[in-house]
Amino acid sequence: MAKGASLSGFPEWLPSQRVVEQTMIDTLRHVFELNGFVGIETRAVEPGSSLLKKGDTSKEIYLLSRLQEVGHEDGKPVEDRLGLHFDLTVPLSRYVLEHSGDLTFPFKRWQIQKVWRGERPQEGRFREFVQADIDVIGNGELPDHYEVELPLVMVSALEALRPYGCPKATVHANNRKLSEGFYRGLGLTDIEGVLREIDKLDKIGPDEVCKLLVSQCGASQAQATACLELAGLTADDGEELRDGFDRLCSSHGIEEDSQSYALARQGLDTLAMIVDEAARIRPGAVVADLKIARGLDYYTGSVYETFLEGAESLGSICSGGRYDNLASQGSRVYPGVGLSIGLSRLLSYMLSQAGAHASRVSPAAVLVAVWNEDDRSRSNHIADALRQRGIAADVAPTAAKIGKQIKYADHLGIPYVWFPAQPGDEADGDQVKNIVTGSQEPAQVVSWTPDSLFSQQSVQSLSDAD
Amino acid sequence: MAKGASLSGFPEWLPSQRVVEQTMIDTLRHVFELNGFVGIETRAVEPGSSLLKKGDTSKEIYLLSRLQEVGHEDGKPVEDRLGLHFDLTVPLSRYVLEHSGDLTFPFKRWQIQKVWRGERPQEGRFREFVQADIDVIGNGELPDHYEVELPLVMVSALEALRPYGCPKATVHANNRKLSEGFYRGLGLTDIEGVLREIDKLDKIGPDEVCKLLVSQCGASQAQATACLELAGLTADDGEELRDGFDRLCSSHGIEEDSQSYALARQGLDTLAMIVDEAARIRPGAVVADLKIARGLDYYTGSVYETFLEGAESLGSICSGGRYDNLASQGSRVYPGVGLSIGLSRLLSYMLSQAGAHASRVSPAAVLVAVWNEDDRSRSNHIADALRQRGIAADVAPTAAKIGKQIKYADHLGIPYVWFPAQPGDEADGDQVKNIVTGSQEPAQVVSWTPDSLFSQQSVQSLSDAD
Repeated sequence: MAKGASLSGFPEWLPSQRVVEQTMIDTLRHVFELNGFVGIETRAVEPGSSLLKKGDTSKEIYLLSRLQEVGHEDGKPVEDRLGLHFDLTVPLSRYVLEHSGDLTFPFKRWQIQKVWRGERPQEGRFREFVQADIDVIGNGELPDHYEVELPLVMVSALEALRPYGCPKATVHANNRKLSEGFYRGLGLTDIEGVLREIDKLDKIGPDEVCKLLVSQCGASQAQATACLELAGLTADDGEELRDGFDRLCSSHGIEEDSQSYALARQGLDTLAMIVDEAARIRPGAVVADLKIARGLDYYTGSVYETFLEGAESLGSICSGGRYDNLASQGSRVYPGVGLSIGLSRLLSYMLSQAGAHASRVSPAAVLVAVWNEDDRSRSNHIADALRQRGIAADVAPTAAKIGKQIKYADHLGIPYVWFPAQPGDEADGDQVKNIVTGSQEPAQVVSWTPDSLFSQQSVQSLSDAD
Repeated sequence: MAKGASLSGFPEWLPSQRVVEQTMIDTLRHVFELNGFVGIETRAVEPGSSLLKKGDTSKEIYLLSRLQEVGHEDGKPVEDRLGLHFDLTVPLSRYVLEHSGDLTFPFKRWQIQKVWRGERPQEGRFREFVQADIDVIGNGELPDHYEVELPLVMVSALEALRPYGCPKATVHANNRKLSEGFYRGLGLTDIEGVLREIDKLDKIGPDEVCKLLVSQCGASQAQATACLELAGLTADDGEELRDGFDRLCSSHGIEEDSQSYALARQGLDTLAMIVDEAARIRPGAVVADLKIARGLDYYTGSVYETFLEGAESLGSICSGGRYDNLASQGSRVYPGVGLSIGLSRLLSYMLSQAGAHASRVSPAAVLVAVWNEDDRSRSNHIADALRQRGIAADVAPTAAKIGKQIKYADHLGIPYVWFPAQPGDEADGDQVKNIVTGSQEPAQVVSWTPDSLFSQQSVQSLSDAD
């Protein structure tokens, strides 16, 4: 096979980098399971009809054709073809409907899988990447306490990545109802349009957003300024949030007995509950930040974005919200709250900026040397006996000079080399050498254990180096 | 979203079934890592040009188109399009060439990932499924001891699945050179054809194969009979194998000083080494079985199939072999030996026949009850304190009647329900109830631990039930 060129947008990691990714996945899963989330995996494909109707990303689908169908593809409507999923939310809503009779609600699930986006290749955009999602789905109704619990689970999951170099994470929360009520109170009607422009604040700044609100959303200068004032509001606790919001309303003439205020108030109450309850459980983890808008149109209440301290340019690495209408069947609705970590992008950052690295490439703690090929069987037996005791062991590939065997261990980061007694000198017993520290000692397969510092492959951050 | 119909060939598991799949994956990975294999993950797509040239399965590719390209697909040659990988061997060979400078050889890797086959839908065939592969790739050369070590790693991996109901596995090994040498010694020239027909033995029986050898491969009746005699040879040790083979050669006039015999002899020596060494390390794990042919044309030496005791109708659940020519770059070749478990098919069997089942749906060991919504914070604190101590905990979704909260725990299989002290009666302390045994006792978050029988979600086999 010819050398394959690497494909833009399809990241692939070297073994030592993959150790970091695998450890991150294991860690997230552990936290999700500690919190009682149930793991599922959905098929990679969905019908085009499901993929096309959801959100911005529906423009970026990869469609499939069987090789036998090539040349006859044009006849088939996109809706009837299969496509790769572009997120884990569309598959979840389909899974819940398909299996509703077999699930216990509220259904709390975690899911870590690849997703695909058929974008034009461009710098820094992945076309295949891993997402790590948690969602809770109610049958008919869903209590709003999940709107604070889910972001807190994500914060503790990200917290568990800090030993590998992940910076402190803070969830920035807003509420769609709050924004919508305020905009309507101002007299604006193109709510989705305003949200879309406000979502650009971090990218293009307030002056440009102001211009767009006027030119695209029919806002007056005063209305646009009011929208930006709302977007400027942040708060660590409910009281501060209520005070700030009510001050804005009164200064822009939004009456407390108006329909618009009533709508905004629903969102305000939920958001105040979220920041207050979060502060009780994990102070500093969640702040109210009224510029958070989120591009996807399926959110109906809380929306979240998550930023890493000192890595704000990375943008949000974990986003989500509440969606009351994503899944329904007849008159039955399945409201949900969920967040999704963009794992591949976070991994890229961890590898390139945070200095996350594997303590070694190989999972083996020890390499058993081979004096000569006729004697390989004995080395195999030693390795097998160590494995029986849970110690990961490799055996030298060839009975090369011992220096070469040690070099093989060194390349893979295997810390110990085991020397079976020389053939003929079995009475002398085996020896094991720590090739990092240089110390060598007699060892027996039934009792030897690696020093705890060297026993397991692990992931370290830059600050652990040296 | 409308209810999605489940898609034929794209299996998806309920949460309790997924626990079995995840546990199998974790177990296999553990054994692979104990043996010093390094984990990698490759992208899901490869260029059509790579996918088209390898083996039988190349007829079953799924090709991708970006939504924007729909309608312009016909202009692009299949070779230049992207397709989903149909196995993990083609991606591995590409990965090795692409990253050869960054890998340590021999490169021992494990890889557990989904693969896709764009087949016509039919009963019992998966179009998306999980494979669990191990391979070792040499740079230039690869010692033949790996041809016994890799099947033994797979046997110990399958052995580790036995507590979940997986039957005893036996690897059946043959060698392409042995078969080819024998066929050539008989005067046959269409070696691939003969292997292809012999591969059908278990499906259509010796009489039909005999007819096909005559009609399709230009064999005389005597040659066809000789091929079937060879296919009938099995042996547990090298001496028995050599004796049986040499008897067949002399009875069919294949001279020991012929070129054909010399070729067969290479294969015979390797196969004899494999069964003898395997018998020393793990008696009964590997037998020589000269009917094993394997459909794929890239094998050049050893070939393996693996059968489960009492589940022979399932066919081989773990197959592979040695391939000397899969990857090359200029004059440099990368020979390999590998085996692949068809994990989804094995999982189907484990669920439907072997009675593998999860001890519970939820990973949580305990559900913390909520007396009333105003008091939810206290329940959250209890759950959090338990999680800090590594005990997976969930909190009741609503402050419903306690009977309903217990029912929620019961549906998810959560064995314990934690009752915070009633508001106002905090001095009485908390209580925890095992809803399986019915016992209830006072408990403190700082010290309580679940009974070991109930502490972890686990997988059991039929015989563990009740």
